Amino acid sequence: MVASNEDIRTTVQRYLDLVAGGTAAEIVALYAPDAKLEDPVGSDVLVGHDAIRAFYESFEALKKKTNLVTLRTCAGHAAFHFEIVTEAGDMKYRMAPLEVMTFGDDGLITSMRAFWSDQDLVVEA
Amino acid sequence: MVASNEDIRTTVQRYLDLVAGGTAAEIVALYAPDAKLEDPVGSDVLVGHDAIRAFYESFEALKKKTNLVTLRTCAGHAAFHFEIVTEAGDMKYRMAPLEVMTFGDDGLITSMRAFWSDQDLVVEA
Repeated sequence: MVASNEDIRTTVQRYLDLVAGGTAAEIVALYAPDAKLEDPVGSDVLVGHDAIRAFYESFEALKKKTNLVTLRTCAGHAAFHFEIVTEAGDMKYRMAPLEVMTFGDDGLITSMRAFWSDQDLVVEA
Repeated sequence: MVASNEDIRTTVQRYLDLVAGGTAAEIVALYAPDAKLEDPVGSDVLVGHDAIRAFYESFEALKKKTNLVTLRTCAGHAAFHFEIVTEAGDMKYRMAPLEVMTFGDDGLITSMRAFWSDQDLVVEA
């Protein structure tokens, strides 16, 4: 049976909580073993846990806050708009991508695509 | 060359203007001849101008307003959040889907996927 909209909502919120305050290993556990990640859309597609873990490890140490703005779920998919503020030293980086995720029947994320471009990044000194 | 982010923004805004106040024929002209449309995601995928025109004709006569909330563009893609209010008699139907479009190098829409479910529909008497 396809993942329910309620299960998908729970996973998206947990994903955003972990992106803000969790480890790369905790985030990867939400993904299926053969999942694909494209962030931003148009960049190389990362496939599988090792590549996906390395992606999240690259900013694991930075201080981050995330906030879910809008979420739509249907037929094993989530589309959502969220804000992420990353602090690196005295700099703050504000982004608010739109993302699309697909989910397997077991509720694991099978693909993630993030829609944003450099022009969406706001840097605050 | 891939459609520019600026051209994509222009087309998305024109699309929403036409959904509100244009004809199905005008909307279909924004789509490539072999384009695909899935609205909502999980329903049958419509392929080609005839099927896509019939989709927009089905609500062409209703009074509608649209409003772009958030738009992200990258690598020949648009992801956007918009509001649409449809009036039918004394009833108002409010929806705010997230949509993803892909664009050909000529700037025409090659696919549209709309993420929403019945629970996102607000009916006002």
